[in-house]
Amino acid sequence: MILAEDLAKKQRSISVAEFFEKNKHMLGFDSPTRGIITTVKEAIDNSLDACEEAEVLPDILVSIRKMGIDVFRVVVEDNGPGIIPEKMPSVFAKLLYGSRFHQVRQTRGQQGIGISAAVLYAQLTTSKPALVISRTNAKAKAHRMTLAIKTETNEPEILLHEEIDWVLPHGTRIELEFKSTMQAKKKLVEYLKYTSVVNPHARFRVEIDDEVLSFDRVSNDVPPCPISIRPHPYGIELGVLKRMTAASDRPLKEFLIESFSRVGEKTAVEICAAAHLPQTAKASSLPLEQLNPLLDAMQTVKIPAPSAAQCLSPITEDLIVKGMEKEFQLDFIKARTRPGSVFGGNSFIVEAAIGYGGKLSVEGTAILLRFANRVPLLYQQGACAITSAVASVNWKNYGVSQQALPMGPILLLVHVAATNVPFTSESKDAIASVPEVEREITLALQELGRDLKLFLSRRDKSKLQEDRARAICAVIPLISQKVGEIVELPPPDTSLIEGRIMRRVVLKKGSSNGRVSMRIDNYTTKDQEVTLYDISADSAVDATISPNFVTEMDGEYTKVWKQTLSAGESFAVSYTGAGGGIVDLQGIAENLKVEVDLDV
Amino acid sequence: MILAEDLAKKQRSISVAEFFEKNKHMLGFDSPTRGIITTVKEAIDNSLDACEEAEVLPDILVSIRKMGIDVFRVVVEDNGPGIIPEKMPSVFAKLLYGSRFHQVRQTRGQQGIGISAAVLYAQLTTSKPALVISRTNAKAKAHRMTLAIKTETNEPEILLHEEIDWVLPHGTRIELEFKSTMQAKKKLVEYLKYTSVVNPHARFRVEIDDEVLSFDRVSNDVPPCPISIRPHPYGIELGVLKRMTAASDRPLKEFLIESFSRVGEKTAVEICAAAHLPQTAKASSLPLEQLNPLLDAMQTVKIPAPSAAQCLSPITEDLIVKGMEKEFQLDFIKARTRPGSVFGGNSFIVEAAIGYGGKLSVEGTAILLRFANRVPLLYQQGACAITSAVASVNWKNYGVSQQALPMGPILLLVHVAATNVPFTSESKDAIASVPEVEREITLALQELGRDLKLFLSRRDKSKLQEDRARAICAVIPLISQKVGEIVELPPPDTSLIEGRIMRRVVLKKGSSNGRVSMRIDNYTTKDQEVTLYDISADSAVDATISPNFVTEMDGEYTKVWKQTLSAGESFAVSYTGAGGGIVDLQGIAENLKVEVDLDV
Repeated sequence: MILAEDLAKKQRSISVAEFFEKNKHMLGFDSPTRGIITTVKEAIDNSLDACEEAEVLPDILVSIRKMGIDVFRVVVEDNGPGIIPEKMPSVFAKLLYGSRFHQVRQTRGQQGIGISAAVLYAQLTTSKPALVISRTNAKAKAHRMTLAIKTETNEPEILLHEEIDWVLPHGTRIELEFKSTMQAKKKLVEYLKYTSVVNPHARFRVEIDDEVLSFDRVSNDVPPCPISIRPHPYGIELGVLKRMTAASDRPLKEFLIESFSRVGEKTAVEICAAAHLPQTAKASSLPLEQLNPLLDAMQTVKIPAPSAAQCLSPITEDLIVKGMEKEFQLDFIKARTRPGSVFGGNSFIVEAAIGYGGKLSVEGTAILLRFANRVPLLYQQGACAITSAVASVNWKNYGVSQQALPMGPILLLVHVAATNVPFTSESKDAIASVPEVEREITLALQELGRDLKLFLSRRDKSKLQEDRARAICAVIPLISQKVGEIVELPPPDTSLIEGRIMRRVVLKKGSSNGRVSMRIDNYTTKDQEVTLYDISADSAVDATISPNFVTEMDGEYTKVWKQTLSAGESFAVSYTGAGGGIVDLQGIAENLKVEVDLDV
Repeated sequence: MILAEDLAKKQRSISVAEFFEKNKHMLGFDSPTRGIITTVKEAIDNSLDACEEAEVLPDILVSIRKMGIDVFRVVVEDNGPGIIPEKMPSVFAKLLYGSRFHQVRQTRGQQGIGISAAVLYAQLTTSKPALVISRTNAKAKAHRMTLAIKTETNEPEILLHEEIDWVLPHGTRIELEFKSTMQAKKKLVEYLKYTSVVNPHARFRVEIDDEVLSFDRVSNDVPPCPISIRPHPYGIELGVLKRMTAASDRPLKEFLIESFSRVGEKTAVEICAAAHLPQTAKASSLPLEQLNPLLDAMQTVKIPAPSAAQCLSPITEDLIVKGMEKEFQLDFIKARTRPGSVFGGNSFIVEAAIGYGGKLSVEGTAILLRFANRVPLLYQQGACAITSAVASVNWKNYGVSQQALPMGPILLLVHVAATNVPFTSESKDAIASVPEVEREITLALQELGRDLKLFLSRRDKSKLQEDRARAICAVIPLISQKVGEIVELPPPDTSLIEGRIMRRVVLKKGSSNGRVSMRIDNYTTKDQEVTLYDISADSAVDATISPNFVTEMDGEYTKVWKQTLSAGESFAVSYTGAGGGIVDLQGIAENLKVEVDLDV
C-alpha cells in the first residue's frame, strides 16, 4: 500500500527549539506585550537563584529601552557568581539545559528552558542574537559572547567571543532585543514589587527608558540556600524505582537507606519485611514482579515527611505579615505556614495569608496574590490550582459572601514552595491541579477563614457595644444639663463617665490653688503605651512623678511622660504651676482617645 | 572563584523525555483518573488523522479492562493505513517525532508528542512497554513490537519484533497498561459522544470491562483531507523569514511566489516595490537591514486571506446544528461559520453555535462545549481563550443575564479549526489567548447573540399576545353562555373563534342527515403538515377527498388524510356515514391543537 509509505516520508524528529518556536505562547510569549515581562522574569529568576547558591546579596539591574517602533532592548545584570565561558553557550542558547532540573530542592528555575526561550523569542522577532557578559573571578577577565540558537537542532551558535574588562568583579549580564510593547508596564512594576516583597534580601534598580525605579532590600541576611535532598519514598513511580534499582550495585536495605530521603536502618528493615524481600537481595537484580510489592511497601510503611527545612525555603509567617503590612493598610492580617507535605516524591510547603479591611475595596471579589518558589504568578489566574482551592472553600462559613472567590475587602496570599512546582505549562503561570497541593492550600485557607471569622464577629460585637454606648453617651450630657438646671448648679463633667462607657483613654488636666494636676484613665480592655505631652509656662520641677523628658523654648516647657497603663489602670501627676497650655496623648488610636482640659 | 566551577558541574542537557516524565501533568497526565482519557484521546486523534489521510471510513475499537487494583489495560485499534515497521519505534516511543508538525494544515495531532507521552506514562507507572501491531498491506504480514522509551535519551527501544498474521488487512493497534482509575468514566463517555458528533463519518466501538457502547457513523462520506499549504505572509516572524530566504536560491519575486500562500505575480511585485527591493535580488543575499522592510511590506500589502477551504476542515453550520439537535432538545439553535482568518501565519476558522430552551436547565450558567480541530476539549475551561471570549461578550445586550458566562438555559458551542491550534500546553486542554482568535470567537458569538435576542423578543412578544388571547378566550364561553340564556337557546359553539384568537389549528367533526363532515382550519401563522386520523364504523368510500390510507379491523375503519395547510388555509371533507368514533390530528405541536367533535 502506497499510503503508509507516503506518510512515512513525512515522519521525522522535531527539535525542541522548533517545537517551542511554533508554540512560543507555551513559554509565556503569547503576545508582544508579555515578551518583556517574561524575559525580565526569567532573567531575574536565574539571578536570584545564582546569588542564593553563591550566598551573595543580590544587586540586580533591569534596563528596558525602546529602540524603534515596537522594538525594545532588555538588559538584566546581576552580581552573582557568574558562569564559566565553556557553559555560557548552552546555558543561554540551548533549551532544556541547566543545573537545577536534576536537583531535588526549591529553586525558581527548574526547567532549563526560561532564559534560552527568551533568546529564541528575540531571534525569532528581530533576528538579533543575545549578548551575554559573565565573569566568575575578580582576577580573571570577563567573557563577552553573542549567541544564537540553531532552531533545527537546538544547539548554541557562538557568533562572537572575546575577553573584556568589566566593572563587576563577578556577575552576569544579558542583553536581548525583541519586538514588544510597554502596554503591560503596570504589570511589570507589580511583578517587581511582589518579587521584592518575597525576596527582602534583594535590591533591584529598574530603568525604563529615562525613568528609574528602586526596590531596596529590607534585610541583609542571605536566606540559606535550600539543600538538594534525595527523593522521598512516598509517591515515587514504579518506572523511576526500576531505573534506580537497575543503576545500583547495593543490597536492598542499603539501597533504600542511601537512595531515599528519611529512610534509616529501621525504616529500611520495615520496608523489606513488608515487601517480603530479603534485606541482602541485590537491588539491581530485582525483577518487575518484586518491584511492585517493594513499591507498595514503600507507600504503606510509615515514613516521616521530608525535612522541608532542608530543601525548601518558605517565606515564613512573620515575613509574609510584614510584607503585606508594608504594601497594604489592613485592619487584620494573619499568615499560616503549613507543615511540609509530599506529592509524587516532591516535598512542598503551602503558606497562606489573609488580610481584611483597611484601604481594600469593599466592592468586588478578593485580591488574590499567587506565588510559587518565591516568584509571583501574574497570568492564568483562572487556570491555577490556587484559584480553584480558594473557590472550593465555603467562605460563607466564615461570614464572607462568595462568587467563586470570596467577596469584599479581602486580600489573599498563597505561596507554594516545592522541590518541583507542578506548573501547568513551561510558561510557569499557573499550578496544575495536584490533589495533595490543593488539599494543603484548602487547609491553610480554612484555618485563616476561622481566624477571619473570629475577627469579624469580635468586630461586629464591639461595634454593637459601641453603638449602644454611643446612644447612652448622647443622653448623658442632656441629663447632666437638666440636673444642673434643677439643682441650679453648673452641669457636672460627664466626660469621664463617657470615657468609661465608650472604653476609651481619658486625659484630664485641671488646676486649682496654684497646683496643676493631670490624670489618665485607661478604660479600654487592652494595655496602652501612652506618651503624655504637656506644654505650658510651668516648669514642673516639683512634679510628683518626674517627666521622662523636659525642654524649654521661649519660656514654654514641654514635659513628656511615658507610661504603660494596663486595662483599667490610671496615672496621676501634679505639680506647682498656673496650668493652661496644651496637652496631648500619643500612642493611642485616635478613636480611643478623649481629651479633657478643664481649668476648674 | 570556586562556585561558578561548582555550578558548572551540575549544568547539563535534559532529555525531552526526562522533562516530560517529571512534568507529566503538562501532557494531560495530572492524575491517574485522567490517564485513561488522555491515552484514549491521543490514540483516537492519531487514528482519525490517519484514516482521513488515507480516505478510509474510520472503524475504531476502544477497549479498557481492569487488570488489578488501579491498573488498566487500554487498547485502541483502527483500520487506518498502518505504519511501516521502520517508523513504528519512533512514532510510538520517541517524543517530538511525527509527520504533522511541519505541515501547514488542520490535523488533530500536531505536536508529535501525544501517543509517545502515553507510552512514557505507562512505563513510568507500571514499567510495562507498549505493545503495537501495525499492517500496511493485505498482502504483507502485520508487525508486532513491544516498545519502550529510553528516558535519558528520548530514543525508542525495541524489546521484541515479530511478523504475525492479523485479522485486519491494514490498520494499527496499540495496547498500554498503566495505573489509573475509572472515576472519570462519565467524562470519557462524554468525550466519545462529542467526538462522534463532530466526526459523523467515524464508527466507535467501546468496551469498558464487559460493557459495550457503540457510536455509529451517520455519514458515509469521508471528509476531504485538508491539504498542506505554504505559510501566509501575514504574521510571519522575522526569524522565520530569515531562515526561508537563507535557504532559497531564487530571485526575490519568485521566492515570494513560491514560498508563500496567496502571493501571485502581482502581489509579489507590489511587495518588492513597497520594500524598495529589486525583484531580481537574490533572496539568500538579503542582509538583515533589508529583511526588515521586506517583512513590513509583506504585512502592509493587501493579500487575500488563505483559502481556508483547502487547508482547513470546518464542521459547517449545517452539521453543527444537526449534531446539537441530535444530542439536545432545544427551542432555538443557530450556528455560524466565520470566514477564514490568520494569526502568526496560521490560517484559522471559528465556528460557533447557540442553543436555547428545551430541556436545558434554567438554573446556573450556560453549558459551553469547546472544540479544536474537531477534538472536544474537556479540561481547563477556565484557562481557555474560548471561555474568556464568551465572558467578554456583554450578554445583557442580548437579553441574557451573565456571571462571566451567560446564565440560563443556554448551550454554546465553539470550534476553532487551525493549521496550528495555539494550545496553552502540550496537554491540549485549552486555547491560548491569541488576540486574533479571541476576536473571531467574539464576533461569532455577537452574531449569535443578536439572533438569540431576536428569538427571545419574538418569543416574549408572542407570549404577550397569547396571554391576551387567553384572557379573551376565557371570557368568550361565559358570554356565549349568557347570550344563550337570554335568547333561550343552547349556547353557540365558540371553539372556532377561540382557535382563531389563539392562532391554533382547529379540527371539527360533525354529522347530520347521514352525512359526516370534517373540517380543519389552520389559524396559525405557519404552514402545518397535518395528518388526520378518523376511526369509526364508517368506511368513507364516497369521501369528497379520498383518504391517503384506509385499514379495517373488527368493523372499525381507520381513515388517514395527509395535508399541508398554509397559514389561514382550511381543509374540508365529507362522506356518508353515522359519524362518531375517534378523530386525531398529528404533526402539530400539542399546544397548537384544538379538537372539536360535535355531532350536532
